[in-house]
Amino acid sequence: MGLLTSDIKTMDDLFVHQLQDIYYAEQQITKALPKMISKATNPQLRSGFEQHLRETENQLQRLEQVFKMHGVQAKGVTCPAIDGIIKEANEVAGEVADKEVLDAALVASAQAVEHYEITRYGTLIAWAKQLGRNDCASVLQQNLDEEKATDVKLTQMAEAKINRAAT
Amino acid sequence: MGLLTSDIKTMDDLFVHQLQDIYYAEQQITKALPKMISKATNPQLRSGFEQHLRETENQLQRLEQVFKMHGVQAKGVTCPAIDGIIKEANEVAGEVADKEVLDAALVASAQAVEHYEITRYGTLIAWAKQLGRNDCASVLQQNLDEEKATDVKLTQMAEAKINRAAT
Repeated sequence: MGLLTSDIKTMDDLFVHQLQDIYYAEQQITKALPKMISKATNPQLRSGFEQHLRETENQLQRLEQVFKMHGVQAKGVTCPAIDGIIKEANEVAGEVADKEVLDAALVASAQAVEHYEITRYGTLIAWAKQLGRNDCASVLQQNLDEEKATDVKLTQMAEAKINRAAT
Repeated sequence: MGLLTSDIKTMDDLFVHQLQDIYYAEQQITKALPKMISKATNPQLRSGFEQHLRETENQLQRLEQVFKMHGVQAKGVTCPAIDGIIKEANEVAGEVADKEVLDAALVASAQAVEHYEITRYGTLIAWAKQLGRNDCASVLQQNLDEEKATDVKLTQMAEAKINRAAT
């Protein structure tokens, strides 16, 4: 969340601020995923990342829909959390030479991203409901469901194959 | 994860690196929590943060135990992810004037921290088991269980009272 945004006075302001934060985060994720795809060796992991890139583009459209429903213009605010998570993912990927170990590291990084999104969507849904915006909550729920499904899929991939191949 | 750490060649290197990352993260959390305690208004939230600070100090000791069991010296590496999550928590807290809205923001920030820890411990446990270190995995599992319980408690507190008070 950026220092350049206006002060937060009400729960509605906080909700919009958090919406801007996750909008920025999803935008950064669409930029980070192509690099992760190019680094992944396991074909299942690559295609999982490719699918998640398409999902993320869809999620951005849903966020734009929520901004519209709530009567505010869609825009992002700098989110140091996702910037830090992506910076860390790039740093560790740059330190791993072995392809199989790199795949294991990429899964861990992707799951850190997923968990950030899971916590933010969980919060946004609770706040939307509290603000009487069940319509916004139900659109945000679709994004949350996809993030949770991606996290489960990454765990299954790691445990079934990737971690074993790396050891 | 820091650029100053040695290159990661094996899954064992990656496991140790991730252990150093979460060790640094837990240390930063023990520094961030007293500030969150001082900002919280709701007494239940304050005491929840106080309890979590004691738990975090305990979790650091468990991590030191895992380092010892694995035959490496306990040390941290800079973790841009937790730095970013804490930076964002401080920024948003600095922008909220209303005490009740601030409590809602503090819960959201604390849950972002919890989810970071949940994903890292989940990964570490899977890697420890893959490396045949079930002994390390079971110590790490205790930390994961506490983080998950804290996250559930924060959700309950927010939904039962804090979000309503802020609206």
